[in-house]
Amino acid sequence: MKNLRKVAIIGVGHVGSTTAYTLIAKQIVDEVVLFDTNTNLVQAELNDLVDGQMEQPHQVKLIAPDLSELATTDVLIFSAGNISILNGNSDRFAELNLTKTIVEEWAPKIKASGFKGIILNITNPCDVITRYLQELTGLPKERVFGTGTSLDTARMKHAVSEKINVHPTSVNGYVIGEHGESQFVAWSTVTVGGLPVAESLTSEQRIELDAAARKGGWTTFRGKGYTSYGIAIQAARIVEAILNDNQLIVPVSHYQPIEKCYAGSPAKVSIRGISESIPLNLTAAEKQKWQLTIQTIKTMYETI
Amino acid sequence: MKNLRKVAIIGVGHVGSTTAYTLIAKQIVDEVVLFDTNTNLVQAELNDLVDGQMEQPHQVKLIAPDLSELATTDVLIFSAGNISILNGNSDRFAELNLTKTIVEEWAPKIKASGFKGIILNITNPCDVITRYLQELTGLPKERVFGTGTSLDTARMKHAVSEKINVHPTSVNGYVIGEHGESQFVAWSTVTVGGLPVAESLTSEQRIELDAAARKGGWTTFRGKGYTSYGIAIQAARIVEAILNDNQLIVPVSHYQPIEKCYAGSPAKVSIRGISESIPLNLTAAEKQKWQLTIQTIKTMYETI
Amino acid sequence: MKNLRKVAIIGVGHVGSTTAYTLIAKQIVDEVVLFDTNTNLVQAELNDLVDGQMEQPHQVKLIAPDLSELATTDVLIFSAGNISILNGNSDRFAELNLTKTIVEEWAPKIKASGFKGIILNITNPCDVITRYLQELTGLPKERVFGTGTSLDTARMKHAVSEKINVHPTSVNGYVIGEHGESQFVAWSTVTVGGLPVAESLTSEQRIELDAAARKGGWTTFRGKGYTSYGIAIQAARIVEAILNDNQLIVPVSHYQPIEKCYAGSPAKVSIRGISESIPLNLTAAEKQKWQLTIQTIKTMYETI
Amino acid sequence: MKNLRKVAIIGVGHVGSTTAYTLIAKQIVDEVVLFDTNTNLVQAELNDLVDGQMEQPHQVKLIAPDLSELATTDVLIFSAGNISILNGNSDRFAELNLTKTIVEEWAPKIKASGFKGIILNITNPCDVITRYLQELTGLPKERVFGTGTSLDTARMKHAVSEKINVHPTSVNGYVIGEHGESQFVAWSTVTVGGLPVAESLTSEQRIELDAAARKGGWTTFRGKGYTSYGIAIQAARIVEAILNDNQLIVPVSHYQPIEKCYAGSPAKVSIRGISESIPLNLTAAEKQKWQLTIQTIKTMYETI
Repeated sequence: MKNLRKVAIIGVGHVGSTTAYTLIAKQIVDEVVLFDTNTNLVQAELNDLVDGQMEQPHQVKLIAPDLSELATTDVLIFSAGNISILNGNSDRFAELNLTKTIVEEWAPKIKASGFKGIILNITNPCDVITRYLQELTGLPKERVFGTGTSLDTARMKHAVSEKINVHPTSVNGYVIGEHGESQFVAWSTVTVGGLPVAESLTSEQRIELDAAARKGGWTTFRGKGYTSYGIAIQAARIVEAILNDNQLIVPVSHYQPIEKCYAGSPAKVSIRGISESIPLNLTAAEKQKWQLTIQTIKTMYETI
Repeated sequence: MKNLRKVAIIGVGHVGSTTAYTLIAKQIVDEVVLFDTNTNLVQAELNDLVDGQMEQPHQVKLIAPDLSELATTDVLIFSAGNISILNGNSDRFAELNLTKTIVEEWAPKIKASGFKGIILNITNPCDVITRYLQELTGLPKERVFGTGTSLDTARMKHAVSEKINVHPTSVNGYVIGEHGESQFVAWSTVTVGGLPVAESLTSEQRIELDAAARKGGWTTFRGKGYTSYGIAIQAARIVEAILNDNQLIVPVSHYQPIEKCYAGSPAKVSIRGISESIPLNLTAAEKQKWQLTIQTIKTMYETI
Repeated sequence: MKNLRKVAIIGVGHVGSTTAYTLIAKQIVDEVVLFDTNTNLVQAELNDLVDGQMEQPHQVKLIAPDLSELATTDVLIFSAGNISILNGNSDRFAELNLTKTIVEEWAPKIKASGFKGIILNITNPCDVITRYLQELTGLPKERVFGTGTSLDTARMKHAVSEKINVHPTSVNGYVIGEHGESQFVAWSTVTVGGLPVAESLTSEQRIELDAAARKGGWTTFRGKGYTSYGIAIQAARIVEAILNDNQLIVPVSHYQPIEKCYAGSPAKVSIRGISESIPLNLTAAEKQKWQLTIQTIKTMYETI
Repeated sequence: MKNLRKVAIIGVGHVGSTTAYTLIAKQIVDEVVLFDTNTNLVQAELNDLVDGQMEQPHQVKLIAPDLSELATTDVLIFSAGNISILNGNSDRFAELNLTKTIVEEWAPKIKASGFKGIILNITNPCDVITRYLQELTGLPKERVFGTGTSLDTARMKHAVSEKINVHPTSVNGYVIGEHGESQFVAWSTVTVGGLPVAESLTSEQRIELDAAARKGGWTTFRGKGYTSYGIAIQAARIVEAILNDNQLIVPVSHYQPIEKCYAGSPAKVSIRGISESIPLNLTAAEKQKWQLTIQTIKTMYETI
């Protein structure tokens, strides 16, 4: 009998839970297993998510946590330890100190479970944690990657689309590098309706849009203490690309052989994970920023 | 130029915000206006909801709060004052004391705005607050109603579907009366695959299922402090029935002319609001329970 | 590596082709293989169906016909030999003479291919052809069934919903028996909003609605020579129930152990095929009609 | 009371009918009115389309033809006179002789109806017929446009996506000019994952891909006598962009002020029709091709 499309989510705070809801609403999966150290919370989310699909033809089985489920899981979403702004995001190093221990706790369990699927990491600092997850699980590098700058890219598209009143999917291009302060908009890649946008913007406008993309995240953090919808929609489309094996190009934190570390840049996603990293044709100035962001990620990794 | 389908949400806590996300994901609306006393929260949700639709063809305009928007709003969702279990749901009277003042604050604003649409109330105690909203806004009774026992009905369907391993949409029937403790499963209305289910269940099994339907809610409350997905999906399908004018029958809290109060029972929903209340053919025992739940709602209303 | 959800369609006339389009639009499958004796038509549909999903995130691989694909196919839709009204549907026996030879041609190929999935038959006369397909392929009875009276049931729901101005999904109940002239509405099963409808209708109204349900099909046939959208949507939801393993109850032509033949009545559908036949509690008059329709199907079967 | 989103379709052959089905399946509209000289066909499609939405929450009202409906219609799709390959598409001039008379028949009726919406033309030769429709109805130029090279662009994206094994939405760029033989891929606009693709292809590969884009259409025509799914999906997303007012950029046949004629190139689509024509930065060679295709369209127009 055929396996159903199964996703496990480790960490069902706002991010993990909203990602589950989105995967269900968009009928991307058939089975979801939830894991969290707070067992009351797991039970609450299992119930609420079942209630949240009551009128749909497509039904997702919500499965209580059991490590043996990982052996037949296709995609494992790692969203444990995402903490609110008050005690975390203002200090990535403090955050790393917390989340690295969660990786150390979970990696051996994943390894022991017989897991043969793909890990999509959301936990911050995303690039460093993704690398650490890959190293501690020992899974092939193409099968462990993170949401990286996918949300930052979406925010840049939104800022541009609002500035020139156009549908956001008519804007293309990437934010690359660290999912954090050292990231940058690779303006040489940004087009609207297929036309390069950089030339038609002054450098001030570019700086303003760059800031708008960042500001979005902080406004959300300051007001509600976390982001949920924005990251959930990015995670869901990446999971869809994996399970549907559709070779979508999306900016994710994946292993960069030249840099020997994980960082966000566009890559093709398929049922085998990263099937190709897309080489960018950056300007000299962008290459400098790229080196800077790579250094930032490496420096942070070394503190582990 | 044609009006776009516009929904306003008053109160963007977990319930209001998740309802907005669901309306967007299911492309039920074109414009959403958010209102809340916490302006940082409104700004955060506006941002996060924009991020949460970045990859969709259908784009919803997220609109900052301005009472003048209500004049062109089709459906107003009232979800203000939904508070967490710790300081509220265990005591409906305490809850009412809080939420009635929120109604008193908002009703005059709605009235003054020139609002000509339909109010769908989610705020608890749902039946009493819906009635109070109708009275203070002075809108026609068929244009003010509440989500009522729609979520309780969904939970009953889920409990039955799980018990006999069947798709939840193959279960029909209703939980009616108060959206609260005095509600009850009208077993005479419950069918599975079109066959009455009551006869094939012992009275113990019915009690167990009835409890399971209730227990679902409490498990969710205890674990996460609120429900969001379950109620959001019910609110979204009711909004869809209104805007699509599709005469869907759904158990909502609407005005019961015989009882002269609001209570949950099946009704047809259309672009004019409640287009027909569906008379139920209850058993004698169910009629007694109905009188009891009506009394409970009335007693609570009189404390206002 | 995980298998993708694969559906094969044998016969890509209007029915098979529209079913493929619907499966793609509703993102129910990941791979579709098309078979037809007209190879130019197969190539045309492969192209048009690819063009027909260009803007979707979910992409379906359209696969050229090769019998070896059947070994990894989850659901095989048999829609070969569906002919237009002019030379066929007015005479079911003439139709059977044609379509039985198509079964005789395909069954050995299916058997030899190593096919381990489920067959959903649409080809008419549906009940007889489904049985013949099961016998010639030798597959377990629960893994071969037909769309049967699912479309007739939908038409009855529509006729009722139009008569009393209600959403069609608020109407429940079944047309059962032969997918053909001897079928009948089992009025004892029909409810609107959960309430039995039979009592509130005169026998004349029931006859009129029964006729309206039938008339729908003939109006469609007379005007366009075939039905496509109506049957495609039924086939698609049954395929979804199989692949999503969701235990949906739907009236399909399946093996009736008591009658020792295939006929349409409600059954639960899962990834293993028919997981349960739902026993109906028919009135005496309905039981007579049931025996009549069973006899009609058996008589037709004996002419093979 | 709010107007529902209403679309009228003039001409319900395969293209018009499949477009209706797609608009319904994707819940883009609330009401559809069908017009055709073949009244039996209209009745058949009304029935089949109702059957084709039976299991959906979102219900579309299917409305019998009555010119007075046009006064409240938001978008009018003109798909009359699309004829099969045998007697038409091989000779665009013969086709024009037929379809121009259909425009002459319908334009006065549209004008007299009080229609205040937007016309989206599919009928071929698309660029010439769209212009003729605008002139004979006297509607503002921004409110009359055609599907133009949107389908050709989709085919180019598919050819490229297949060549380099990437998701088709990761390919951007345009086929522009005539929806016919003189059209061309504007390679300077084509990117994959945001990177210009032209440099990485040899001129032979570009010619091959250009041919593959065209060949797709012919293969479909030869095998089934018409295209339906490909064009329906393009028409549906354009209708969605109009009704959702979302400023999507899409290559459509719209009025080109510089050229004083209709031709296909990217434009922003909103509830007011064409809200902006996107200027392209073509190479010198592409500019020559553009002049050639404009001349072809004008020459054909002059034969009217």
